[in-house]
Amino acid sequence: MPSTVSAPEATSAAPDPAALCRFLDGEHHDIKEEVRQRLADFGVSPPGEQLPRDEYRAQVTEWMVKLAETGQPAMLFPESAGGQGDPGAAIAAFEMLGHGDLSLLVKCGVQFGLFGGAVHHLGNEEHHRRYLGKVATAELFGCFAMTESGHGSNVQAVETTASYDGDAGEWVVHTPTESARKDYIGNAARDGRMAAVFAQLEVGGEEHGVHALLVPIRDDDGNVLDGVTIEDDGDKLGLQGVDNGRIWFDHVRVPRENLLDRYAKVGEDGLYDSPIENKDRRFFTTIGTLIQGRVSVSGAALSATKSSLAIAVRYANRRRQFGPPDSGDEALLLDYRAHQRRLLPRLATTYAIHFAQRELVAGLHEALTTDDHDDHAQRQLEARAAGIKAASTWHATDTIQACREACGGAGYLMVNRFAAMKADTDVFTTFEGDNTILLQLVAKGLLTDFKQRVGDLNALEMVRFYGEQVMDQVVERSLARQVIGAFRDIVPSGDDESYDDERIEDRDWQLDLFRWREEHVLGGVARRLRAGLDDDADTFEVFNECQDHVLAAARAHVDRLILEAFARGLEACDDDSLKPVLDRLFDLHALSTVERERGWFFEHGRMTAPRSKAITKAVNRLCAELRNDAEALTDAFAIPDKVLAAPIAIGEDKASATG
Amino acid sequence: MPSTVSAPEATSAAPDPAALCRFLDGEHHDIKEEVRQRLADFGVSPPGEQLPRDEYRAQVTEWMVKLAETGQPAMLFPESAGGQGDPGAAIAAFEMLGHGDLSLLVKCGVQFGLFGGAVHHLGNEEHHRRYLGKVATAELFGCFAMTESGHGSNVQAVETTASYDGDAGEWVVHTPTESARKDYIGNAARDGRMAAVFAQLEVGGEEHGVHALLVPIRDDDGNVLDGVTIEDDGDKLGLQGVDNGRIWFDHVRVPRENLLDRYAKVGEDGLYDSPIENKDRRFFTTIGTLIQGRVSVSGAALSATKSSLAIAVRYANRRRQFGPPDSGDEALLLDYRAHQRRLLPRLATTYAIHFAQRELVAGLHEALTTDDHDDHAQRQLEARAAGIKAASTWHATDTIQACREACGGAGYLMVNRFAAMKADTDVFTTFEGDNTILLQLVAKGLLTDFKQRVGDLNALEMVRFYGEQVMDQVVERSLARQVIGAFRDIVPSGDDESYDDERIEDRDWQLDLFRWREEHVLGGVARRLRAGLDDDADTFEVFNECQDHVLAAARAHVDRLILEAFARGLEACDDDSLKPVLDRLFDLHALSTVERERGWFFEHGRMTAPRSKAITKAVNRLCAELRNDAEALTDAFAIPDKVLAAPIAIGEDKASATG
Repeated sequence: MPSTVSAPEATSAAPDPAALCRFLDGEHHDIKEEVRQRLADFGVSPPGEQLPRDEYRAQVTEWMVKLAETGQPAMLFPESAGGQGDPGAAIAAFEMLGHGDLSLLVKCGVQFGLFGGAVHHLGNEEHHRRYLGKVATAELFGCFAMTESGHGSNVQAVETTASYDGDAGEWVVHTPTESARKDYIGNAARDGRMAAVFAQLEVGGEEHGVHALLVPIRDDDGNVLDGVTIEDDGDKLGLQGVDNGRIWFDHVRVPRENLLDRYAKVGEDGLYDSPIENKDRRFFTTIGTLIQGRVSVSGAALSATKSSLAIAVRYANRRRQFGPPDSGDEALLLDYRAHQRRLLPRLATTYAIHFAQRELVAGLHEALTTDDHDDHAQRQLEARAAGIKAASTWHATDTIQACREACGGAGYLMVNRFAAMKADTDVFTTFEGDNTILLQLVAKGLLTDFKQRVGDLNALEMVRFYGEQVMDQVVERSLARQVIGAFRDIVPSGDDESYDDERIEDRDWQLDLFRWREEHVLGGVARRLRAGLDDDADTFEVFNECQDHVLAAARAHVDRLILEAFARGLEACDDDSLKPVLDRLFDLHALSTVERERGWFFEHGRMTAPRSKAITKAVNRLCAELRNDAEALTDAFAIPDKVLAAPIAIGEDKASATG
Repeated sequence: MPSTVSAPEATSAAPDPAALCRFLDGEHHDIKEEVRQRLADFGVSPPGEQLPRDEYRAQVTEWMVKLAETGQPAMLFPESAGGQGDPGAAIAAFEMLGHGDLSLLVKCGVQFGLFGGAVHHLGNEEHHRRYLGKVATAELFGCFAMTESGHGSNVQAVETTASYDGDAGEWVVHTPTESARKDYIGNAARDGRMAAVFAQLEVGGEEHGVHALLVPIRDDDGNVLDGVTIEDDGDKLGLQGVDNGRIWFDHVRVPRENLLDRYAKVGEDGLYDSPIENKDRRFFTTIGTLIQGRVSVSGAALSATKSSLAIAVRYANRRRQFGPPDSGDEALLLDYRAHQRRLLPRLATTYAIHFAQRELVAGLHEALTTDDHDDHAQRQLEARAAGIKAASTWHATDTIQACREACGGAGYLMVNRFAAMKADTDVFTTFEGDNTILLQLVAKGLLTDFKQRVGDLNALEMVRFYGEQVMDQVVERSLARQVIGAFRDIVPSGDDESYDDERIEDRDWQLDLFRWREEHVLGGVARRLRAGLDDDADTFEVFNECQDHVLAAARAHVDRLILEAFARGLEACDDDSLKPVLDRLFDLHALSTVERERGWFFEHGRMTAPRSKAITKAVNRLCAELRNDAEALTDAFAIPDKVLAAPIAIGEDKASATG
């Protein structure tokens, strides 16, 4: 073999998928296994054919009710309201729904997570007592009416009003303009009886910002109530089993008690009172409850990604195409380097996100089950959830697409699942927070942390005001590191091909590289913002000029978070039969990320041509080494065949798998 | 303004969309305009809602028949068969169908392009006389039965047999195994009456490789004929208006004359005779006729890409979100740098591919209308078509996705078009040649050209046999350039920020950079193949080890082809009101491509940190400069509002466009 070609090292025995599954599932193995089996038992397979919309919606509602009957959703809610108070397990269980029909997942997310979550996190004990039980059993179908046609990401600008009529002791909920109609609201078009409506609260002529109220929208027989207008959103790109719709309110009256008043009350005296004086802070505390939705969407995207990889890897391990000349046999798709490169780095990153997601769920569980409220920790958790949601959902879009293409024409048939996975997950990148906006939220948090102070969330103001000293320190630190890095990385002399950089597979080196990138990008942004905000600069203009840089900082941060979570996950592994393959996956994830970002590392003196080439070679070698483990690595996701469903993956399409 | 922030230069007046449209359309402006209007007149809008499959198929068939009645498809066929012999105009017209319903486009592609093309390019004058007229008027619905369940890209391995029964003077067409069933065949499930079947020809016990024959599959009343079994492929990810299906043949007999015998005849004497002795060469000549399909798919992808950009740009120019603090107004999406970065480089690349596509159509027209057959030129045209099809269809997938995300929730509603565009174009990357396989075909052609000899298409054999000297020359040449390049690019001393590289907007420098990359990657591959194929290496193994490198060479080649085509297109522009904006688009396309590939340029000594940063700054500046022209640039695609159809683009969704 010439030096440019490296043979795969002999790999150890393939890992045991069942053992790997237990390790991946961790503390929630039992509930996850239960839900995976439940999906199979209930026949919650994604449709292999296009169902008429009404039929599909009815099916999804039926599944949801059946699921509610198992008591699974009640895990989410506090024991005081008849629940089990185990949000971590509930979210882990929800994640498993992502292997099945994603309309069911989203419908459950709306019902139990968003509507139930609003009542739970924004309501008082009386609200809990009255509603949570009925939410958990799906006796009461609810909507989360936040988004308006004119206002998606900018929730603070919603136009719907809730004015207090002190004489009647009632709220008057109203849609003042066409752009204020509530839009894309799940459960609205068909099933919803009540909505948590986000509106600008007005009491005695004073405006208090966005608050949520419970507003009945249909009676028990499903008739739309007076003053409420509902329109179906019509057909969507995917998630056709969810009944999204638009809602208008025409001076609809609800009792004073319907305000979800955890963060702001109006007493019988008609006076507004909130423990959080600052209007902005009150708003961000209120919508902080969205975090659970983001964590859930991130997990759902992860499950769909795993399904797509499970199908594509199995197909690639059965389907033959071309092959050695003068040989009757064609080669398996997975034997081709280009095919390995399509699937295996994405599989490695899926593992990485898996561990980041697991930590995120644990963090959220802790936050939701302790009474100690730490504002700073809460903001950090929110930023983490935002960043990982963006990473996980973009990774899903990218991976499902790559898997579809890797299955060719067979991948285009609806029966093989990619159609639904692609269409259903597509909206994940822009709902529960548009990914771009979420990354800006992450960046804002990072800049905020720089000055070690919480409260006012306007990062630009802060930077302008306090930033100088901190920024100087950061810039200096990162410049110092850059200089050290540059010295360390002097191009070795001699032949490129013979250059063998052993450090690239050193975990500390990899972690350091990701950390260095994050700090360096962030330092650069901070410096630019500070420079830009001198004098009488137009704040918006300065921020906008840096927007791509700000987003890069957030991405670098999220990449580091995910890598560290993966590393911690592996450190906790004490099964020697799993370690070697997990170590390889870690290297493949880390090095393929560095390879993708190598332009930036070159630009900042941390990459040399020989090292870059060594990384590409290492990625290729790791792909070859992992090739024989690929199917065990996707089998470890433990998706029952009945749920995986694709004939090309479960051996029911022999016609296209033979050569 | 600080030095890190560059203000957009004052731009000249926005270009006139009508003038720009005429320039873009070029010689086919009239027919393109006619088809765009026809789509509007016929109401060929993509469905804004999910239609039941049967209804949708019926609608598409009706549209196709109506289209056939206009005489448009007949442009494709020779005058001797009642056509107009203007394939260039026919393909340009077909491209415009890509703005409308893509099921109609694909149905027409199957009927007129593939089935009609097989009769036209593989048949004799008698076949033309008997069938082409009826194909053009859609009296005779036909299938192109090439792909089998077990054999997609590897057409040479199809298993269907056509054995000659000399006594009866008939062919016996047979499906010997389950993997040999014809699959994904358009027009099969519902409308097809006859199929051009690709099968292994066997005459008098001798095998002659893959040939095509006409086999009736249904009678005039639509009943499936004896010996033929047809199954619906069922629901698909997209293109639900096309009736794809599977076909099995059980010893089906057709007359001797049904062999499409341009490249091989069997006479009354039962003897096989072909002007092309080499079996491989005969095969590649036969399937060379696929080129028209590839050119057409490339054009269709381009049109869908333009539609998606037209919608997303208009939405971004109306929809407001957030904005300057303490201001009542929110900013337009298109004012945000991150949004500009999402849409405008992709718009620039769409323009680049537009010119490459136009040249490709002109080249194909010339090849189809001259009697001079030049094998080498034909291979080059095939490679060009393969490469541009891969680039155009991947660009479509990427751009439509980016546009969908850029329109948030509104983009997820079916009525706003992205649902259908995403789903329908998705298969473009893997049908009419899987893009990865097509890029390998391109690379094969490049390696073949190295030894300046055509014929045997086995590049590996060639490289092994003849390659050494040529490879040496290439390697030396590219190494010499690399050294020169490295000297030219020595890092300038001084402050990064003050480094201003004027050359990066010099067109010759840009072209040279793309050419250098191509030659360098190609030289590297050739060197590795040569080194690997020394001794008794396993050819497959060596090729596979280089596969990612081979694909990179093909991509570099295609990038260069596209850039050069764009440059030639602009050189031909003599309208001074259009030049400045087109020049900016060119720079944006070129520099954003270099930015994307900067890791590679660094790795090969052609990039420095200051230059890389200058390129990023230039991309940002070009985006800002083009921001105000963006809508004129998409209006120039002249897609009628009735066809564009998306309410968010044609002003019918004011609710979501206001702030």
